[in-house]
Amino acid sequence: MLALQDIWDSPVDDRTKGIPAGAALPLREIGAQGWNLLEGDTPLPAAVLRQSAIAHNVDWMRRFTELTGMLLCPHGKTSMSPQLFDRQLGAGAWGVTAATVSHLHVYRRFGVQRILLANQLVDPAGIRFILSELERDSGFDFYCLVDSLATVDILRKAAAESGCSRPIQLLVEVGQAGGRTGTRSVVQAIEVARAVHEAAPHLALRGVEGFEGVLEVADPGETLARIDKMLGEMSAVAARCEAEDLFADGPIIVSAGGSQYYDLPPLLQKRLDTRREAILVLRSGCYITHDSSWFSEYAKAIAARMPEVGELGEGLRPAIEVWAYVQSLPEPGLAIVTMGKRDASFDVHMPTPLKWHRNGMGAPTPLAGHQVLRMNDQHAYLAMPADSPLGVGDRVGFGIAHPCTTFDRWSVMMVVDDDYRVVDAIRTFF
Amino acid sequence: MLALQDIWDSPVDDRTKGIPAGAALPLREIGAQGWNLLEGDTPLPAAVLRQSAIAHNVDWMRRFTELTGMLLCPHGKTSMSPQLFDRQLGAGAWGVTAATVSHLHVYRRFGVQRILLANQLVDPAGIRFILSELERDSGFDFYCLVDSLATVDILRKAAAESGCSRPIQLLVEVGQAGGRTGTRSVVQAIEVARAVHEAAPHLALRGVEGFEGVLEVADPGETLARIDKMLGEMSAVAARCEAEDLFADGPIIVSAGGSQYYDLPPLLQKRLDTRREAILVLRSGCYITHDSSWFSEYAKAIAARMPEVGELGEGLRPAIEVWAYVQSLPEPGLAIVTMGKRDASFDVHMPTPLKWHRNGMGAPTPLAGHQVLRMNDQHAYLAMPADSPLGVGDRVGFGIAHPCTTFDRWSVMMVVDDDYRVVDAIRTFF
Repeated sequence: MLALQDIWDSPVDDRTKGIPAGAALPLREIGAQGWNLLEGDTPLPAAVLRQSAIAHNVDWMRRFTELTGMLLCPHGKTSMSPQLFDRQLGAGAWGVTAATVSHLHVYRRFGVQRILLANQLVDPAGIRFILSELERDSGFDFYCLVDSLATVDILRKAAAESGCSRPIQLLVEVGQAGGRTGTRSVVQAIEVARAVHEAAPHLALRGVEGFEGVLEVADPGETLARIDKMLGEMSAVAARCEAEDLFADGPIIVSAGGSQYYDLPPLLQKRLDTRREAILVLRSGCYITHDSSWFSEYAKAIAARMPEVGELGEGLRPAIEVWAYVQSLPEPGLAIVTMGKRDASFDVHMPTPLKWHRNGMGAPTPLAGHQVLRMNDQHAYLAMPADSPLGVGDRVGFGIAHPCTTFDRWSVMMVVDDDYRVVDAIRTFF
Repeated sequence: MLALQDIWDSPVDDRTKGIPAGAALPLREIGAQGWNLLEGDTPLPAAVLRQSAIAHNVDWMRRFTELTGMLLCPHGKTSMSPQLFDRQLGAGAWGVTAATVSHLHVYRRFGVQRILLANQLVDPAGIRFILSELERDSGFDFYCLVDSLATVDILRKAAAESGCSRPIQLLVEVGQAGGRTGTRSVVQAIEVARAVHEAAPHLALRGVEGFEGVLEVADPGETLARIDKMLGEMSAVAARCEAEDLFADGPIIVSAGGSQYYDLPPLLQKRLDTRREAILVLRSGCYITHDSSWFSEYAKAIAARMPEVGELGEGLRPAIEVWAYVQSLPEPGLAIVTMGKRDASFDVHMPTPLKWHRNGMGAPTPLAGHQVLRMNDQHAYLAMPADSPLGVGDRVGFGIAHPCTTFDRWSVMMVVDDDYRVVDAIRTFF
């Protein structure tokens, strides 16, 4: 589907973190080298993707969106890997969501034909790029967000000056006080929507968007109430825009849903009060790898709120592990490990020690009772119980919290089977 | 000096963050494109290096080490940019410090001939790599740390099996209770040193190392006392090792000093009590770009403790800025900016708003009274005073805290002159 040839052909060598000394080969050949993480073939730290978990998760989310009647436009910022986008599109994704102008470059270079930029576009270089792509390729279907008259003005002027024959398609972003971007009231959203409508033929109002992930507060009940209010306002804005005939032709696009509360946007189906067809677009991105200690907690809450997910069988599986060596046992109860902030997420939780392995052992053994206390740039401090089996030179496999901030620390990630044989590799574009 | 041809010739295109749409050129030509950050030629966010500040800082540290009689082995983990290593070596650096096996690959591919791996080496793939490099290139001068009998054993066995004709040169690492790696007493350090000595001809004891940066506690006086204790123990270990004739031939190498307390290792000169020549090696890395709100505070404390640095004139200058667009002004007092955790350090402090710019303005204007409250993956929340000049579409330039965790978010960083014209670019290898 996507034009991935450049990636598969791209040269990889040992200047890339995680690649063995002396290796110099096209990316496509990595899976045929017979490397095994547990045989010390690759230097550690190494971040790996578990092939079976990725396949399970892609299929799970396909079945979830079928169950809920949503379309999926997964956020590509998570992995920034066109090879994974291709898997997601192959499983029926409607498009790919982006956050930045550089994301747009990457997506277009690899042939993503439908992009939802879930962000305001005010960068003149970015606006010029989008207008030129719209003009160049009639099959390119692009949407972005707008939340102020100032942004409408910037986009309208740029589109008019460019002479582009197609409009920039916009969703008005509905936000909430204390949130991130987005209008702060229905009245304000309608004002923005009217300005977009008046900016035809350069701009076209196509729908309504919100992002519930930034509404979180300490109290879960209050968080749900805030999300409920946002969904209600999105519904009201859609109804008002239709009543005022502000939407351009085509189905109304209504989009919400990150990776924390993806059970809630489907509730919009019952609340939407538009005569015209509306399509609901979910933007979850982190589901593709899930994690071991953050989204995994949200998944439990989703299962509790939405028992129907039980119909899908086993839920999302953590697909990322970062492996490192025990390099020092300097004090009782403390191991220092060759993995740091440069290698694994630390913005939500510290990594979770999952299992360990010593040369000559078979499969890795689960590692209970250990905890990462903190990380420096290139080291982790691992608290150990008195009966810890770990010795200097042992390998420890960690789960992570928040895939986005682990993916962006690796330009190449190896894909492993359940025995930690390297069977493939992906390239990321951060 | 280094073999940088591959980097200068390497193709760059708009799949790389910060590179303008449509660009496809060798890295060496970036500086000739006439791009200017303030004219919207490049998409934002963009992290830039200020050329004049880099030149000043490289020269400042050369003069600082001359003043103190230290040799400089700058930590390359900061930038992981061989182009910057080349500047540092060109200014007289003794070698380049590394932290990981992948660092070693990168350094060797670009011809770094003296490497201090300021870490334990227990990764079998890494040990094999070093042994093969030692055998292949008689001009390669390599040192790493050892802090346990277990590590001595791992290294001795691997070196013996390899048949390498040269020893792995080791510094015994002196640590402190509550610190990171390193022995926890002089007695323990001497035991390790004896084991290294006994592992001749495969291993060679060449010196003593400590890292004071991990000894920091909340109370500055207590921190200095802990560092003083570490330096005292390093001195005692060096004297005992000499007395027991454990050192291999050549000058004794004594190394300490990161980027926070680089005035303290020179004090070792007075405390060292060895008859044989000892060379003092400083490992600071972050000086090359300094920062706007973390190392900048340490620099003030250094100036207060060591008035002689006043002889060097102006101190280190912050050389990294990350620029982004104001994309939304959703509420009074709040701007949302197109820069996030993927673009700028957030592990010590949030970025510091320094200046702003609007199309058609001349030079950027200082921006007082603004503060980054928090960042998401791709957004920053900027608190603004009531009289803030910022509007949607304006550019804001941020200083950062902790260069390491900004460098590792960019595979290519543009170098700008004082007018923000892009005059060069560096590649990083994370």
